[in-house]
Amino acid sequence: MRIITISRQFGSGGRELGKRLADHLEWDYYDKEIIETLADEHGLDEAYVKRMLSNHGWHNLQLTYRNSFAHLTFDPGLKTQLLVRTREILQEIAEAGNNCVIVGRDADIILQEYHPFRISVCADLTSRLERCMKHENKKPEDQRLTEKMVLRNIRRIDRNRARTREILTGKAHGDGSTFDLTINASSWDLKKLVPATAEFARQWFEQ
Amino acid sequence: MRIITISRQFGSGGRELGKRLADHLEWDYYDKEIIETLADEHGLDEAYVKRMLSNHGWHNLQLTYRNSFAHLTFDPGLKTQLLVRTREILQEIAEAGNNCVIVGRDADIILQEYHPFRISVCADLTSRLERCMKHENKKPEDQRLTEKMVLRNIRRIDRNRARTREILTGKAHGDGSTFDLTINASSWDLKKLVPATAEFARQWFEQ
Repeated sequence: MRIITISRQFGSGGRELGKRLADHLEWDYYDKEIIETLADEHGLDEAYVKRMLSNHGWHNLQLTYRNSFAHLTFDPGLKTQLLVRTREILQEIAEAGNNCVIVGRDADIILQEYHPFRISVCADLTSRLERCMKHENKKPEDQRLTEKMVLRNIRRIDRNRARTREILTGKAHGDGSTFDLTINASSWDLKKLVPATAEFARQWFEQ
Repeated sequence: MRIITISRQFGSGGRELGKRLADHLEWDYYDKEIIETLADEHGLDEAYVKRMLSNHGWHNLQLTYRNSFAHLTFDPGLKTQLLVRTREILQEIAEAGNNCVIVGRDADIILQEYHPFRISVCADLTSRLERCMKHENKKPEDQRLTEKMVLRNIRRIDRNRARTREILTGKAHGDGSTFDLTINASSWDLKKLVPATAEFARQWFEQ
């Protein structure tokens, strides 16, 4: 069983790369929101989650549908419980034994005993802002965030992720040595990165 | 004309990857010591350097011969002059117009106007120490450094490079976003990374 994990800067395109890589390899795909939804268990009992996992059930959902999970908010009281459940869900995904790509949730650290191929995707601030604003511009006008608000979000999320990584690894988030491959996605066509990324992963798993 | 630059942590294997990549692509190859030797001008006048560059003359030297430049020491009084000359030499390499791989010397920053594909190679401390000790063990016994001395060297070189990078870029050395691709070479067989790395570079130059 082979696992590729993708950690990414918010707005870098890491999720898109992960989805495309899973499609290219024909592997299962999980991202932050899917895993949180699984772990949240509102309307999903554990048996259902397990059935979904063993049937590769999430793999064929549309990316747009997955995106719709992004705006679920959780009762802050559930947060700790959710983190514990997330860890359990990641273990269940790994134990299900299917090759998969997992985006986010520090899966590279939580699943380190499974020796995942650890990819990090970053991008410069201009590209990230541009990518986020493209996303905002698809929303109804009265729900769009301004550039200033998006920039504030990016900085806040960066700070939070950096803090979580530092706690989990004892190393700074930007430190390339905690990943096997770090891709700077600024102004690349992500589609074109997929075959070379898959080739790196193949070499890594075969050695 | 296409330039690939390789920045690397001391002992990470970045130089070996650079040489193999140049061989794979059949491009010219320059590393820190070659460039410093060119710039040093002891026994090499400028016309000679230019002739060497235009004839791809350094490309076919053995890596072992290149390694022998590593221990040249320079009069500290020459240091500033050498840095200025290094910059000029890098410009001359770029202006010669041949596709090339350049390892070290912050060529990614100095030649940024040529839009090089910027690779960074890192590795964990254990792998770096192991790689360096393998190198030491090839030396005559009375010239070998101890593990402790090598470790001290690694840390000193890391500090110096980090400082230089920070001055030149305003960003921390480990920050993946100053490179296009960061490869963690810990315990990989470097030979096997070459085709995937070349494919990334190809995609990058063709977009």
